[in-house]
Amino acid sequence: MLYRLVIHESQKQDTLINLFSEQEHYLRRVVRLNNGQNFITMDGKGHCWLVKLTDHGGEILVSLKEIRELLSSVTLRFALTKGKGFYVIIIWPTQFGGKHFKTIISHRTLLKPSENKLERWRKIAKESAEQSERQIVPYIAQPISIFEAFTSMNKMNIPKYIAVARANAPHLLGFLTNLLEFPSQIIIATGCEGGWTTDEFYKAIECNFQPVSLGKRILRAVTAPIMVMSLIAAVAEISNHE
Amino acid sequence: MLYRLVIHESQKQDTLINLFSEQEHYLRRVVRLNNGQNFITMDGKGHCWLVKLTDHGGEILVSLKEIRELLSSVTLRFALTKGKGFYVIIIWPTQFGGKHFKTIISHRTLLKPSENKLERWRKIAKESAEQSERQIVPYIAQPISIFEAFTSMNKMNIPKYIAVARANAPHLLGFLTNLLEFPSQIIIATGCEGGWTTDEFYKAIECNFQPVSLGKRILRAVTAPIMVMSLIAAVAEISNHE
Repeated sequence: MLYRLVIHESQKQDTLINLFSEQEHYLRRVVRLNNGQNFITMDGKGHCWLVKLTDHGGEILVSLKEIRELLSSVTLRFALTKGKGFYVIIIWPTQFGGKHFKTIISHRTLLKPSENKLERWRKIAKESAEQSERQIVPYIAQPISIFEAFTSMNKMNIPKYIAVARANAPHLLGFLTNLLEFPSQIIIATGCEGGWTTDEFYKAIECNFQPVSLGKRILRAVTAPIMVMSLIAAVAEISNHE
Repeated sequence: MLYRLVIHESQKQDTLINLFSEQEHYLRRVVRLNNGQNFITMDGKGHCWLVKLTDHGGEILVSLKEIRELLSSVTLRFALTKGKGFYVIIIWPTQFGGKHFKTIISHRTLLKPSENKLERWRKIAKESAEQSERQIVPYIAQPISIFEAFTSMNKMNIPKYIAVARANAPHLLGFLTNLLEFPSQIIIATGCEGGWTTDEFYKAIECNFQPVSLGKRILRAVTAPIMVMSLIAAVAEISNHE
């Protein structure tokens, strides 16, 4: 299996990939590639190339038309959970195919991530995308306040769900399988430890979010996005096969 | 939310729960309960009681009829992955409702877990079951060889699936949603790093396992059981609601 390297789009010039010295070091010392050996390069935005390592960097041999991406663009809006363990929200939903990870600060959010923390999360997203052989690296946006987030999505005419625990909401999977055609965009919000406040919940309803359950068991805040993304990916894939 | 404690069934005598000293210590010092305060006790096999802390241990107030369990009994048969990270196979599938976790040693399995390691995994299962407020703690069985495992399941007349990557198999979700009635038992096998050998794959087919895909992206060995269990739980729950 060929090694996969995510580059910035500015590193591609015609048929050449200008490698940063740490990338070249990694390819030669860790992956143990020599001149003339191949690897895969992707810009994280959907483009992918088979590349040969040379003294001048990477030489593009051919553009690859792999399709490992969901046709549907899934935005996960998750309230920031406690710092530790947050990375699991990134690893698995990335492997399952999520495209946009937007963090929100809710009333019960304790964590205010620094720019360093965001960069660390983006690195995890990049590594998970490489591992799962995706062409797109999900972007982790700067957190915004929950009311701003919900209001900004109010007018969007796409399916919007909000996951709730201990409520008598119908299961997310029921909504997904009842969609006549799988939408090109979908948004789902999951909460932090302690759940949504009543105000937050009603704001979501006001902004046309549909409350959904993820089952009878009580999922941890970091677990909900994992289940959400695995269900959406699976339904999107069987819908698009049909 | 009341604290939940898993006990061994032998600790219950009539209306009394005999607490081990470390359990009592934990309840008083960490959870900070005083005499007269309540907590929930479960035997991990489906029974649950509301219990009051007293000088003599726990006094059962009432038997609880919570139903957070899937009606279907799901057995995950997973090939042991590399040691590190294996715990994620236990945490999330437990929270999603899996009942039996049976590990198998396949050709590419590198890890041979010690009894200590198994105990550690069982502790993680117990904690995850407590957190997700389940009544049943999944049991993690001693690993057995893959051929023995597949052969022992050959004659079982229940749906049996084997997850495969990079093959043209239909998606697991398609099979699950096409079941006329959700089965009371279901088995699914997922592989370790490097996947199944050809021999292992054909042995599974011979033993009536249906090959299934988990989507176009390449999931890590520890990720596959997470997706599998979230899909099965969700389909089981919407089927049983109908």
